[in-house]
Amino acid sequence: MITVIFRRIRRASAVLVFCWLGGALIVPCAIRAQLITFSKQDLVDYTAKEPFERFADGRPKVPNELLERARDLNSEEIWATLHEKGYNNQFADGFTILHPGKPLVGRAFTLQFMPLRQDVDQVAQQKAKEHGLARLMNQTAIDMLQPGDVLVVDLFGKKVDGTIVGDNLFYYVMQATHGGGLVVDGSVRDLQGISEIDMPAYFRAADPTPIGNVMLTGINVPIRIGGVTVMPGDLVVGDSEGVYFIPPALVQQVVDNADVIHIHDEWTRMKFEEGKYKSEEIYGTPKDPALKKEYEEYLKKRLDEIRKGRPGL
Amino acid sequence: MITVIFRRIRRASAVLVFCWLGGALIVPCAIRAQLITFSKQDLVDYTAKEPFERFADGRPKVPNELLERARDLNSEEIWATLHEKGYNNQFADGFTILHPGKPLVGRAFTLQFMPLRQDVDQVAQQKAKEHGLARLMNQTAIDMLQPGDVLVVDLFGKKVDGTIVGDNLFYYVMQATHGGGLVVDGSVRDLQGISEIDMPAYFRAADPTPIGNVMLTGINVPIRIGGVTVMPGDLVVGDSEGVYFIPPALVQQVVDNADVIHIHDEWTRMKFEEGKYKSEEIYGTPKDPALKKEYEEYLKKRLDEIRKGRPGL
Amino acid sequence: MITVIFRRIRRASAVLVFCWLGGALIVPCAIRAQLITFSKQDLVDYTAKEPFERFADGRPKVPNELLERARDLNSEEIWATLHEKGYNNQFADGFTILHPGKPLVGRAFTLQFMPLRQDVDQVAQQKAKEHGLARLMNQTAIDMLQPGDVLVVDLFGKKVDGTIVGDNLFYYVMQATHGGGLVVDGSVRDLQGISEIDMPAYFRAADPTPIGNVMLTGINVPIRIGGVTVMPGDLVVGDSEGVYFIPPALVQQVVDNADVIHIHDEWTRMKFEEGKYKSEEIYGTPKDPALKKEYEEYLKKRLDEIRKGRPGL
Amino acid sequence: MITVIFRRIRRASAVLVFCWLGGALIVPCAIRAQLITFSKQDLVDYTAKEPFERFADGRPKVPNELLERARDLNSEEIWATLHEKGYNNQFADGFTILHPGKPLVGRAFTLQFMPLRQDVDQVAQQKAKEHGLARLMNQTAIDMLQPGDVLVVDLFGKKVDGTIVGDNLFYYVMQATHGGGLVVDGSVRDLQGISEIDMPAYFRAADPTPIGNVMLTGINVPIRIGGVTVMPGDLVVGDSEGVYFIPPALVQQVVDNADVIHIHDEWTRMKFEEGKYKSEEIYGTPKDPALKKEYEEYLKKRLDEIRKGRPGL
Amino acid sequence: MITVIFRRIRRASAVLVFCWLGGALIVPCAIRAQLITFSKQDLVDYTAKEPFERFADGRPKVPNELLERARDLNSEEIWATLHEKGYNNQFADGFTILHPGKPLVGRAFTLQFMPLRQDVDQVAQQKAKEHGLARLMNQTAIDMLQPGDVLVVDLFGKKVDGTIVGDNLFYYVMQATHGGGLVVDGSVRDLQGISEIDMPAYFRAADPTPIGNVMLTGINVPIRIGGVTVMPGDLVVGDSEGVYFIPPALVQQVVDNADVIHIHDEWTRMKFEEGKYKSEEIYGTPKDPALKKEYEEYLKKRLDEIRKGRPGL
Amino acid sequence: MITVIFRRIRRASAVLVFCWLGGALIVPCAIRAQLITFSKQDLVDYTAKEPFERFADGRPKVPNELLERARDLNSEEIWATLHEKGYNNQFADGFTILHPGKPLVGRAFTLQFMPLRQDVDQVAQQKAKEHGLARLMNQTAIDMLQPGDVLVVDLFGKKVDGTIVGDNLFYYVMQATHGGGLVVDGSVRDLQGISEIDMPAYFRAADPTPIGNVMLTGINVPIRIGGVTVMPGDLVVGDSEGVYFIPPALVQQVVDNADVIHIHDEWTRMKFEEGKYKSEEIYGTPKDPALKKEYEEYLKKRLDEIRKGRPGL
Repeated sequence: MITVIFRRIRRASAVLVFCWLGGALIVPCAIRAQLITFSKQDLVDYTAKEPFERFADGRPKVPNELLERARDLNSEEIWATLHEKGYNNQFADGFTILHPGKPLVGRAFTLQFMPLRQDVDQVAQQKAKEHGLARLMNQTAIDMLQPGDVLVVDLFGKKVDGTIVGDNLFYYVMQATHGGGLVVDGSVRDLQGISEIDMPAYFRAADPTPIGNVMLTGINVPIRIGGVTVMPGDLVVGDSEGVYFIPPALVQQVVDNADVIHIHDEWTRMKFEEGKYKSEEIYGTPKDPALKKEYEEYLKKRLDEIRKGRPGL
Repeated sequence: MITVIFRRIRRASAVLVFCWLGGALIVPCAIRAQLITFSKQDLVDYTAKEPFERFADGRPKVPNELLERARDLNSEEIWATLHEKGYNNQFADGFTILHPGKPLVGRAFTLQFMPLRQDVDQVAQQKAKEHGLARLMNQTAIDMLQPGDVLVVDLFGKKVDGTIVGDNLFYYVMQATHGGGLVVDGSVRDLQGISEIDMPAYFRAADPTPIGNVMLTGINVPIRIGGVTVMPGDLVVGDSEGVYFIPPALVQQVVDNADVIHIHDEWTRMKFEEGKYKSEEIYGTPKDPALKKEYEEYLKKRLDEIRKGRPGL
Repeated sequence: MITVIFRRIRRASAVLVFCWLGGALIVPCAIRAQLITFSKQDLVDYTAKEPFERFADGRPKVPNELLERARDLNSEEIWATLHEKGYNNQFADGFTILHPGKPLVGRAFTLQFMPLRQDVDQVAQQKAKEHGLARLMNQTAIDMLQPGDVLVVDLFGKKVDGTIVGDNLFYYVMQATHGGGLVVDGSVRDLQGISEIDMPAYFRAADPTPIGNVMLTGINVPIRIGGVTVMPGDLVVGDSEGVYFIPPALVQQVVDNADVIHIHDEWTRMKFEEGKYKSEEIYGTPKDPALKKEYEEYLKKRLDEIRKGRPGL
Repeated sequence: MITVIFRRIRRASAVLVFCWLGGALIVPCAIRAQLITFSKQDLVDYTAKEPFERFADGRPKVPNELLERARDLNSEEIWATLHEKGYNNQFADGFTILHPGKPLVGRAFTLQFMPLRQDVDQVAQQKAKEHGLARLMNQTAIDMLQPGDVLVVDLFGKKVDGTIVGDNLFYYVMQATHGGGLVVDGSVRDLQGISEIDMPAYFRAADPTPIGNVMLTGINVPIRIGGVTVMPGDLVVGDSEGVYFIPPALVQQVVDNADVIHIHDEWTRMKFEEGKYKSEEIYGTPKDPALKKEYEEYLKKRLDEIRKGRPGL
Repeated sequence: MITVIFRRIRRASAVLVFCWLGGALIVPCAIRAQLITFSKQDLVDYTAKEPFERFADGRPKVPNELLERARDLNSEEIWATLHEKGYNNQFADGFTILHPGKPLVGRAFTLQFMPLRQDVDQVAQQKAKEHGLARLMNQTAIDMLQPGDVLVVDLFGKKVDGTIVGDNLFYYVMQATHGGGLVVDGSVRDLQGISEIDMPAYFRAADPTPIGNVMLTGINVPIRIGGVTVMPGDLVVGDSEGVYFIPPALVQQVVDNADVIHIHDEWTRMKFEEGKYKSEEIYGTPKDPALKKEYEEYLKKRLDEIRKGRPGL
Repeated sequence: MITVIFRRIRRASAVLVFCWLGGALIVPCAIRAQLITFSKQDLVDYTAKEPFERFADGRPKVPNELLERARDLNSEEIWATLHEKGYNNQFADGFTILHPGKPLVGRAFTLQFMPLRQDVDQVAQQKAKEHGLARLMNQTAIDMLQPGDVLVVDLFGKKVDGTIVGDNLFYYVMQATHGGGLVVDGSVRDLQGISEIDMPAYFRAADPTPIGNVMLTGINVPIRIGGVTVMPGDLVVGDSEGVYFIPPALVQQVVDNADVIHIHDEWTRMKFEEGKYKSEEIYGTPKDPALKKEYEEYLKKRLDEIRKGRPGL
């Protein structure tokens, strides 16, 4: 039995160092103990325009209210604003989606793995020991997750030996993130068990093997998922098409613009249901000046209604 | 906001010309304003054997009663008749199916797109203008759809920029065709929104980008979908395996033959349920003369029942 | 109509010989009438360590009680024991799964097909005739299925003309195996019809064509499915990830070990729900000696409970 | 033996009608006898800006002198001009290239095939007969090739039964086009034999089967090859990367611009060989004003030299 | 160093039993020591129509003279005869070809591997020991090769750990078969070294790993390579398209028919070179009766010449 | 013309900062101006066991003499030593190889690109400016190459817009590295032009587009190429199978072990040529004690010869 359970961890390789900062807070000393490092100052510098608070480690913290509003977003609405602002590389697809109807929304907590290489791994572990730590498991990174986080993992599409979690750790991630979610360019184990847990997840494949033959090379560093450069703290939004990674500085615009698109779609369908118009007369923007006016008034009225029914943001 | 909405159409390229024929009916002058043309006479010539009425533009009009009967067809039943008649290239698969349980049945309304090429597109637009029309949107073709139509679109498998509709136009197509359906060798936008609309759809992929970098080159011309040459007016039938395109001249035989296969399957399963027979004694055709006679009487009786319960066709 | 139905069998090619062994039991004389043979003695020799009864043809017969316990297995639990014993090639995936939530459990009944080759096929048929048999249909093999069997078929991934059954024979297989199941490295017909029948099935694709251009070369011979060598009588277990083929000699260990893993997962989640622990303190094996003791006592207690509630095995 | 040879043609399906125009010239009456038609007037309208002569059937005829100059073009040089003019869909790749070192240059002669469909094929053949012609072979289209032509064929990527020519017809094409060339989105037969014939060819695959299960639907109509809309008369240029299809109206600019790029590359390499400069100082455009001046004088001098050594174009 | 060299064999798994038959000849007792067996009688039964001698183990022995004539065959010529006789599954392609210009000709010596499974492997090894043999290497099968053989190996497309030979054993195979050749549905090692050895080879991939994680399950048994059922003793012919496996009973017809096709092609090209004919007048079969007569006389004359210049066959 | 040439650089995005260290040497201040940084100290720490000199930036410098000896290595020889030492992830394949016969040997100079993201790119550029630099081109990294370097680039498999160099920069790289070489998980432009330049190159594809829509995120940082973690300074060795990345600390062992394998292969082939032995008696290690002794003496003698003929290393 010990053998069986030990199997689950024996091949995992993870290097992480904690510093006790004299207070209650435990912050990872990512600077020296992983292969790839991205310091708190780096995080602050590269996300300088985000208007919100930050976590202790520097990650932008998109407010909970905006996370809530983001639950109503769909792919098209996000595409519109990002495209207008010149961001054309923020969408990744090709995932198996665990619960296709359930929206994924949260703040990106990133992990990077690379193929195992003993010389590199030994140095990283030695560095960990020098910071007073024994060999660390990859769940150590998972133990840093916060409520509202989405765990975003670069396992370079690995299927066999590329399973970031099985059902037990998936359950833990759900608890720790308050149902935030998982996006992995890699695989998961225990698909059957995971299916019964109520957290959104996007993965490339499922496989019975545990994670192995890799090394954890970065925690909350910039990573690549498909054609997207993901930054720690990005707003992650997934629907049945795929996943968007939205820079925090654009979040407010995205959700505000989505209100307009929502109303526009509402009005367009109302008109289509009347059965009096060809699509060309309505779709995109109404051609007839009177109709256009009618639309604009409707838009204004509905925007007012929506905004009144909403607190601060 | 205008920017956002305008985005939806700005890259679409479509060329279509209407002629006002002195009456209420608007018919497209497809002959001169698209790159590829297929005249009313062409349509009549190439479908000369179809026994039904035609639309004003020459498309065969498989009667509503046969559409209704076709809702009970499955892939195997269609294969049987088409194969017997020497039609082995009428099935396309490899689609994502929007509502797998919901049958797709209707008359093919075909669109063809090709990669954008400015010199060609400019001439086509010039021809459109000469017929008194401003630049046309691709929903113009969509505005020609009739109740009972299935929109069948050759977008040569394009995913990015190959989205024939988003949820608004999908909604419009549902209204215009009375829930007919969509088959596109290309993609759709707003998968989430489309999923909530009750119309069958078959597509290669979903993508957040709007249609672009293509030109509309044909409306109701012969097109290729996978390994099938689709003619305007074909009976389109889709189930959870894929889509059949049935020449109108064969429709009656297909549905009549399907009655026989239905009854055969009914009887075969009844026998299997009795648990007295090996599959070899029953399957295909009963081996024992007495059983065979029993089957034939059953077939005759059931055919009579079915036909009595059915109007004209 | 005869034409239509005859189509279903005309291209199938199957060679099988029965011997009447003076008793009620019919056993296939596989030794001389198929291209590839694997005698009863071969079966007994190559599965000598399996501790259970055998069928008359030599196939190991994993007891019904163990089949029942196997219904609770998941991929991870099976992987753990097989990996520990050095069996790393017993899992196949990449299938379309008919009823993803429904577990597949049964004893492997294997079929092997190879591409049709007239010279070989003619000899095999001649051999069949010499044993007093007319040309045989491929359902003859299907007619040999027993309750609790899973039909496992090597059709070398063939899609077109590689459909082992349509809905009628699928129905028959369900009846004959008492809902055992089907795994085919090939395709099925009548996906729509099959979907309504309550038997688990794993296949590569669906296609409207009937089986053809192949010859049945082995019944209950060793076959390859993906990266697995499957032996007749293997315990077949499928979940939403894929299919395991478990050597009968390991079945008892697998299900016993699964009890331990079940309890371990139960305890782990209980601890996670308490919200007091990081995953690292619990996952894999508890780090704190007191916790470890708590776990071990829990394990012992629950194992006792489980075993008391269970008959003999 | 007759059987053997007859095989080569029996499955080919081609429909073409000739009109004897009272003179020596034979011109195809493409208008009525193929499924897809593109009249001489269509050709003239859609290529109105091309400044050269035309063939009797309306195809633009890029002059031989420009074909000659085009032999020195490479992919990058063509890309530069087309991209600048907004043509981003004129390049197709993914081909097997018969003689990778040998440039392909010529005027596009296009053929379109579609999957065979008996009802359509029968009408097309009937139309052919009405024009006084017996059943036509697909080499009839090949018999229309002119010196300098490149045969460009849409066989929708078909491998098995999608072989446009074997070595005999390939030899004929070489003779008829004076070594022009072949581009087929489909396959060829007799790869071994074809390899010994000195004509460039680009194809998707080689296969031993003859062409079959298709119908010839268009001769010199607009076709799609990969992501390119090809027009009859386009300048076709292929190198070891792939194939460009250049609108005749842009040919002069492409070859003139290529002179500049040639000289630029010449000068850049000369500077690199001197070993005194970093790439950044030279590449793209020289940063130092003195160097820039040197380059511009060199460019002017070399352009003069090149142009003096060249007749009219 | 020992470690290094030992690596090459340590993972290989092979089971083979020799019987000393009282004479000089060593014949493998394939019947009991491999998983899949195919006895001498099986071989004789299933190739009863082949008109030539046999090897001691029952394999048909296509005479050397016919091997020699087969060196001039190309894919098309083989296809013609096999297709006419109803053999449509004898061609495999998709290989990397070591020396594309060099023809592959020889008699099939087949090997079958399956994924390693310890329980099966242990029994097979026990059986080997009972026949007085120590653990055997997979080169034991290679040691059975005869001059004129082509080694044909089913490694089910395995790349990593699926390398049948490296350069040393490849060299040995060349020596033993007198340059016969290799076809493997799997991979090879040492591509660089192998490239310098003058023997034709067809493989799926090259990889640096040695063979492993498989078991040798059959020597000279029927195997599947792509879509072909290969029988031991088949005539193997490979050109730059792929590989044909020709049943010995058809070999004479194939080579005789090839003479006719050779002459036909010769004459056709002569006519094309005259430049007086359209392809349609000549290709396939000459349309003009006078030309046809000319051709038939030419054919007769050339056949006579060829046959005179050739010994017995 | 300016337009044309400017095109080559306009979409490239690169961020790099140089520090003038008071001396002649220019060293990049990689620490602050790229997204991903890996300092000189990181390089020294993570390659602490390498026994050679280092470059000024900390990269290990495998001596020229060992580079020279490495030119005779083949894939198998490298695999043997790395596998023995537990390094199983150092080989990447699937490349198009520019000059298949020409060995690639050199020291890894790594570049990492990621998908363009404006917010990140703007900060990186701002940081560059703060270090006194204008916008930098991606050839700036290329300008840092040293003789003996191989440029190893992670462009995440990008084809369109993923071309690291065209023929001009390829020429420059050849000059700067003294023919070292290029490995790119991405594409190249101007395949035709590049083919004429005598430097080894491994790439995924060729494409006419210039590099674009990406940002240079790391210079001499750890990168991933296929399944390999590549460290700056690794010995890169490529043959016709693929590319090995060898940690500097293992280089001496690899080349020494290769001597033994060379001699072993030499002796094995000599024995095979004698024609007296089965492969089993010789291959791997000689079975006969006398033969083994003969081999060992041969090995010793040849090793002595080789080592005498070689300077220091």
